[in-house]
Formats: sequence, C-alpha cells, structure tokens
Amino acid sequence: MRCVLAPDSFKGSLAAPEVAAAVASGLRRVLPDIVLDICPMADGGEGTLQALASAGVGSLRSALVSDAEARPRQVQWLQGDALAVLEVAQVVGLPDVGRSTLAERHSGGVGELLHLLLDAGCRRVAIALGGSSTNDGGAGLLAALGGRWLAADGSELPPLPASWPQAVYFDESGLDPRLATLALEVWSDVSNPLCGPQGASAVFGPQKGLTAAQLPQFDTALQTLATALLRQRPGLALDVAGGGAAGGMGFALQWLGARQLSGATAVAAANGLAARIAAADWVITGEGRSDSQTLHGKAPALVAQLARSAGVPVSLLSGAVEDNPALAASFDGCFSLCPQPASLAQAMQHAAAWLAQAAEQMLRLRLAARRQAC
Amino acid sequence: MRCVLAPDSFKGSLAAPEVAAAVASGLRRVLPDIVLDICPMADGGEGTLQALASAGVGSLRSALVSDAEARPRQVQWLQGDALAVLEVAQVVGLPDVGRSTLAERHSGGVGELLHLLLDAGCRRVAIALGGSSTNDGGAGLLAALGGRWLAADGSELPPLPASWPQAVYFDESGLDPRLATLALEVWSDVSNPLCGPQGASAVFGPQKGLTAAQLPQFDTALQTLATALLRQRPGLALDVAGGGAAGGMGFALQWLGARQLSGATAVAAANGLAARIAAADWVITGEGRSDSQTLHGKAPALVAQLARSAGVPVSLLSGAVEDNPALAASFDGCFSLCPQPASLAQAMQHAAAWLAQAAEQMLRLRLAARRQAC
Repeated sequence: MRCVLAPDSFKGSLAAPEVAAAVASGLRRVLPDIVLDICPMADGGEGTLQALASAGVGSLRSALVSDAEARPRQVQWLQGDALAVLEVAQVVGLPDVGRSTLAERHSGGVGELLHLLLDAGCRRVAIALGGSSTNDGGAGLLAALGGRWLAADGSELPPLPASWPQAVYFDESGLDPRLATLALEVWSDVSNPLCGPQGASAVFGPQKGLTAAQLPQFDTALQTLATALLRQRPGLALDVAGGGAAGGMGFALQWLGARQLSGATAVAAANGLAARIAAADWVITGEGRSDSQTLHGKAPALVAQLARSAGVPVSLLSGAVEDNPALAASFDGCFSLCPQPASLAQAMQHAAAWLAQAAEQMLRLRLAARRQAC
Repeated sequence: MRCVLAPDSFKGSLAAPEVAAAVASGLRRVLPDIVLDICPMADGGEGTLQALASAGVGSLRSALVSDAEARPRQVQWLQGDALAVLEVAQVVGLPDVGRSTLAERHSGGVGELLHLLLDAGCRRVAIALGGSSTNDGGAGLLAALGGRWLAADGSELPPLPASWPQAVYFDESGLDPRLATLALEVWSDVSNPLCGPQGASAVFGPQKGLTAAQLPQFDTALQTLATALLRQRPGLALDVAGGGAAGGMGFALQWLGARQLSGATAVAAANGLAARIAAADWVITGEGRSDSQTLHGKAPALVAQLARSAGVPVSLLSGAVEDNPALAASFDGCFSLCPQPASLAQAMQHAAAWLAQAAEQMLRLRLAARRQAC
C-alpha cells in the first residue's frame, strides 16, 4: 500500500512535517512496510518553506537580512530546481517582533532577501506572504530593491518608516534591473484590497498592534504610497485583490509584476502533489481544525479535490472536526485526533501521540474493509 | 451491507440501545439502505433487560415488588421464549435508595419478583446481579421465598435486616418447592467471594455507604448467614467465586442451585449474537471507556472475539480509547466519539450526536476502501 501524507500544519501545535511524521509512525505500527510519500502542505504562510523542503522540493539555504525592526536576522529560503521560494514570515514574522510599534516596522528585509536571490541567479521566485508583522505597503521592500520615495516637493525621503506617510512620489530608476525579467509569484490566500474597510490596516492591522485610533492614519499612508507607485507606472487597480496581503506587500509585489497564486494551490504545484496522489492508494490530510472554512481554499480541501479527481480515497485527520455535511462529503472519513475527552491544551500537548494512535486505527479499519472485499 | 450494532452502555451518558440508535443514525446518513441489526449488549448489570428487549429478545413485563427500603416499586422483567430475566438493579438498585443505611436495606424484593416469575410459569430464570444497593447476603431474598432465619436458640427471627446478624440457623422447609426444579442462572462478572478482604462487604460495601468501622460487623454477619445455609445443606464452598456478587445474593442464589455465568457471555447467548454476527459484514461495539480492562471480560471484548471467530470485521467506538496495543489488535479500528477537544461533561452531553458523526466517518472510510478493492 502506498499512502500520501499531505497534512497542513496544526497551528500552535505541530508543523506540517511533524504531523506527517506522527501519522507515519502510527501507520507503520500496523504495516511496517507501507510506502509513505511524505508531502506536507502549506497555504503560503509560515511553514511553507519547511513543508516544501520536507516534501523533497529543493533544499533550504540561509541568508542574513534585516528583520522588521532592522536587526540582522538569519533566515532560510528554498532553492528548488526551477523555483526559489522565500517566506515573508521568516524575515518579518509576527512572532519575532520585539517592542516596536507598527509604525516602526518595515518590509526592507524582504527586499534584501529578494536581492540576494537575484544575486544567486534565481529567475523564478515565489514569495509566501503569510504571517507578516508589517503594514508598510511594501515601501521598505521597494526601497531595499533600489527604489526611492520622494516628498511632495520632490526631495528624497530617508528610507525609514517615519518618512513613508509623506511619500507622494516614487522614483523607480534605481530599481534592480533584473526585476524586469524576474518571474515573480506571490503565494497568498488573502484577497483583501490594500485600503478601505476590507484593507490591510483595517483587517490585519489589529492583530499587529494597530489601534482603532491609528487606523485612519495608516490607511491613508498606504493609499498615498500606492498612489505614488501608480503615478509612476499605472495599470494596476488601487483596489486589486490581494493588495492588502502582508501589510500591503501584496500591492507592491503585484505592482512589480508578480502573479498572485493561491498558497495551497501553488504549494501543491511546487511539490507535484497531483502526480504523487495519482500514484497512491490512499491520501491522508488534516489541519488543526476543520470546519466550513476548510472548503474555502484551505490545503485539505485542495488535497481532497486532487484525490477525488484521481479516484484515490482521501481521509481527513485533524485536531477538531466540525459535523458538517459538505466537509464529510468531501472526504472518505473525517477524524479527530482526540481519543478521549481532553482540553485543547492537552490535545495540543499530546498531538503527535494521538495522531499516531488515530492513524493506526484508521488504517486498521481500512485494511479490514479491503481484505473483506477481496 | 449488513452491520451488527452491539455496543455496551456508556455509563452515566447513554444506555446501550441509545448508543446503538445514535450509531445507526450516523450510518444511515451515508447509506440510507444499510441493514442494521440492533443488538445492544450488557454485562449483567443495570440495563441488561433494556438491552435484551431492544435486541428483540422477548418482551418486558411489569411487576410490583418491594424495593431495598421495603417501599412498593414497579419493576420490569423480561419474558423471553425460553428464558425469563430479572435485574437486581431494577428492584434494589443503588441509584434508587433514599436515606436508609446499608443495615436497613435488604433483597426481599428480588425474592418477591422471583416468586412472581414462578407464578407466571417461568421454568428458566436468569438474575442479572449488577448494581445492587444491598449487602444482606441474600437473606431477604431467601426469606421472601419462604425460608425462615432462626436464632441460636432456635427461635424464629422476624424477617427484618436487624435480625440477620443473629441468624445462626436457616429453615428451608417453607421454601417455594418450585425452586427445586427451576433452572436458575445468575449473570455477573463478579468473582469475589462472600467474605474476607475480597468479599462483598470489603470490596463493594464502601460504594453502598459502608464505613471502615462497620466493615467487620457486616463481614461477620454474611459469614454467619452463609454458615447457617451450609449447615442446612452443604456442598457449596463458603468462598465460592461470585458469592460476593450483589451484596452476597450471589452466594444465596448459588446455594439455591443457580449456575453463575459471565454477564456479557450470557447476554450474547440470549440475544443470539454469534449467529447475528456471522450473518453480517461489519460489527460495531463500544463502551464508555475502553482500556486494558476491556479485554478482561467486558462486552466489547466478547463481541470482538465472536466477530473474529466468524471472520467479520469488528470496530470499536467508545467515549474514550486508551492507546493500548492489545486493545488495538483486538479490533479493526478503535475510535473515540470525540470530534474535538472537549470536557468529559461536554462529551457526555453530546454523546449521541458525536457517536452519529463518528459512525458516519467510519463508514465513509470503510466504503472507500471496499470500493477501491473491488
């Protein structure tokens, strides 16, 4: 039997490769010789690099860049065969911020890293956008790539977050020329526009420390920056879908020509999931909590869709599973890892052991049904 | 597909027929036409009658007898084709006691009910022994059947619990003569002897309100009663296994000639479980909590054994499932009803809905495996 293990991460508990390893150990208790194709998933947020590397897509490289607070930070990026991937959360990740306010953080390090990838010869780069701590509209990123922000009187502004609310013009003449021929992708499931009530500041600002009182000022600043970019080079709508991803980096990157792809879809394309599923007898996916949201573009829904297309049974093993008919209909069995009543903290603490236990039981049930049918 | 549903009760939450109904509803969500053979199990304790009736074994009848506190009580018994069953817990059940002390409660009502069954023409009677509130060594039961307890000087003692510690002799001349030809069974999983450190008073007394200080007095009283019975008619060892069941009723009934049977085994024999399993494609059993104890004579272990003998897959669906290799090896999948982290109280509250959800998922996994194998 050949089984593809393609879980997403269990947020706050286990990374996707750890989930796959736990499931694998449970399956091997029953069938030591089972062929397991470890193919952890991600949605373009934190853990995307790790999932791809664990699925055998390229190798991880290190780089030293600035974090959101302009401190040096060792980060990883992924060098694949035809594609390099960098992860915004590695550079300016929300869990890594110190005492800075949102007004002090910027995305310059992401630009530095992209610059390093260009130096390394990468011609196709994907940027996984989830998990940022910044809300600078990608101003820092563009500055790090050679762009200059100018005030209303045409004077150059220092490349510091405090300047950007005054940045009425953008000078792209110094931008790295290699960007023009770079095949750039952004991976994100965020379709919010840059500004307004559904924009980056209003929707994602609060979790990054933005108060209601500060909101108008930040929203206006992003609009000012974007207007400067569009004045320089029009063609992109100010309210383009996904512009609000990663504190507005989504807008800046699309302005640079990046194609926006759904995170899970892009990860599945990168790790060759469809072909791997087609070669398997069974697929197991999962996530921290599965509910009606799961079917709206989450990784397990994509895995289910690919498996159903290939005619391969696909089962869900998550931390929690809502009793939802559409969810149930999308999988050949939706199971929770909980083997007993337990608090969320206990479930997270025992997640690996309980995943193994649940996977073992799922395989036992499956084997009995197959034996009987034959 | 034909599936036998043979769960035990989920103690404190759902009776076995309720568990079976919940599982059935979940299975029917996937296969409305699935053939379900509802065969709830019991271990000879509370719920045995209900499980048998729900499994289609005979019909429930009512009778008015005395409870453990000598109040009139409407109870049920089961009239099967060849076998009548009465349940000690229906008559002198622990949840039904009021303010009485253990010294005031007696098993007379069980004797009254047995007398009524003899009047009804029953020639084979099984007594399910679990769940009693009494510790009278069956003295009340024997008195209700016509026996007389006598003091050391040969004087008749009033048939009251206060007398029995003085009961040195037993006069069986007035015992109902139909008892001599009655095929009597006791159903119980208790193998404790009547007296001593593993006896009825020491082991089961505390949960019935016995204090450590009272223990010697009660233990001695049971020994006195049993000695009186053996003086009248020897042949039974004072420490016979199961004598300590149901506060010593086990001893009195064995003295009357009853055969002691394992509760689950007897229930399975009564409901024809082996033949029903042999005609099925799948068996689901379960209980409140499954752990290493499950394999020591609990109903799900028996169900598993019968299913394995018949070559029919058998899965476990319980409230909680210990990660135990022997348990896992005994079933084709051991699942918990918990679809998410939840407290025990929540799990008990949602048990029916969650059982349905889990059963649905088990069937979906199974169906996919069968389709694929075919």
